[in-house]
Amino acid sequence: MGLLIEEDCTVTDEVLQAIAHIPTRSLPAVVAERFFERLSDRDFMRVAAWLAQKSYDEGGCPIGAVIVDNETRRIMGKGHNSLVQGNDPYNHGETSAIRDAGRQDFSHATIYTSLSPCDVCAALLYMRQFERVVVGDITNARGNEGQLRAKGVKVDVLEDPMAVALYAKYRRERPDLDLEDWKGLAAVRKCKEAGG
Amino acid sequence: MGLLIEEDCTVTDEVLQAIAHIPTRSLPAVVAERFFERLSDRDFMRVAAWLAQKSYDEGGCPIGAVIVDNETRRIMGKGHNSLVQGNDPYNHGETSAIRDAGRQDFSHATIYTSLSPCDVCAALLYMRQFERVVVGDITNARGNEGQLRAKGVKVDVLEDPMAVALYAKYRRERPDLDLEDWKGLAAVRKCKEAGG
Repeated sequence: MGLLIEEDCTVTDEVLQAIAHIPTRSLPAVVAERFFERLSDRDFMRVAAWLAQKSYDEGGCPIGAVIVDNETRRIMGKGHNSLVQGNDPYNHGETSAIRDAGRQDFSHATIYTSLSPCDVCAALLYMRQFERVVVGDITNARGNEGQLRAKGVKVDVLEDPMAVALYAKYRRERPDLDLEDWKGLAAVRKCKEAGG
Repeated sequence: MGLLIEEDCTVTDEVLQAIAHIPTRSLPAVVAERFFERLSDRDFMRVAAWLAQKSYDEGGCPIGAVIVDNETRRIMGKGHNSLVQGNDPYNHGETSAIRDAGRQDFSHATIYTSLSPCDVCAALLYMRQFERVVVGDITNARGNEGQLRAKGVKVDVLEDPMAVALYAKYRRERPDLDLEDWKGLAAVRKCKEAGG
């Protein structure tokens, strides 16, 4: 018996979208382990972008993240923001992927995040000793890349056009959700009181 | 029909322990709303300490937190660390209570935490615009109180002897869990490699 996605399968957007949707623990039943060795940084970032798209399609904030083992290139965890879906004041793409991964050693791992990390997630990434962070969008948000580097984390910026366009569209459509996700409902209330 | 804990019920440790264990959404069915107006800072901190005890009894890290509305004194959310119970690399007392509260405005709320907040939680508390943080233990950990004050958050230290003793005991018993909860499994591995 083969697997749906064999080792030599062509890397297409359809395949990367499917990988985004398949639960992490189910990946070995669908995707050949060595297929992942063929994926580039850009490919893993596109998986994060598809996770952002999944969240957007559910009415949520479009931010996704994928954690990859630097040696095996296996996906250790992945997820997306769940402010709306989980009624959760703080579960960003990064925390969602970390929760999905569970208690693992992240010091030989890369996290691909579709949007530049907030203050909270940046602190979490260096406290959990990630070796490397790849940021897929510094057009819509930026700021903690320098702090992460100062803490010894390797940071690469690799903008994904799909992630950048999706976040810009969502911010135009749902400025309230965007603000709540960064600064909480208090900021949304103050903005409304100021006539914003 | 009355409620198990009426408005004029004596405030005892047994009552505070029960409040820690009753799910937040079930509190109105068991505790008279005005009973909470009679609780002091020290009482709410003790509820956080009982949540820490609950986590310890489950084999987890003994850190609890309670979020209280500053006007009504109603409990908006509460919880405890779930590193062990939830296989979660980052769910501290503070995040657990915030998740339990859901999407609420925290700018008129106090969070009582049984242990001084880590870097990640401190960032989260100011980003979610908490008005006040009360810290129940600066003997076993400390350091972010100044940062929180610099960000405009009121910080009070009100050590709870039960919380302090419980955390000290747990740290002696499970230094591995203590280290993992603060710095991740990478730190535990490095400590073992160094003969620690």
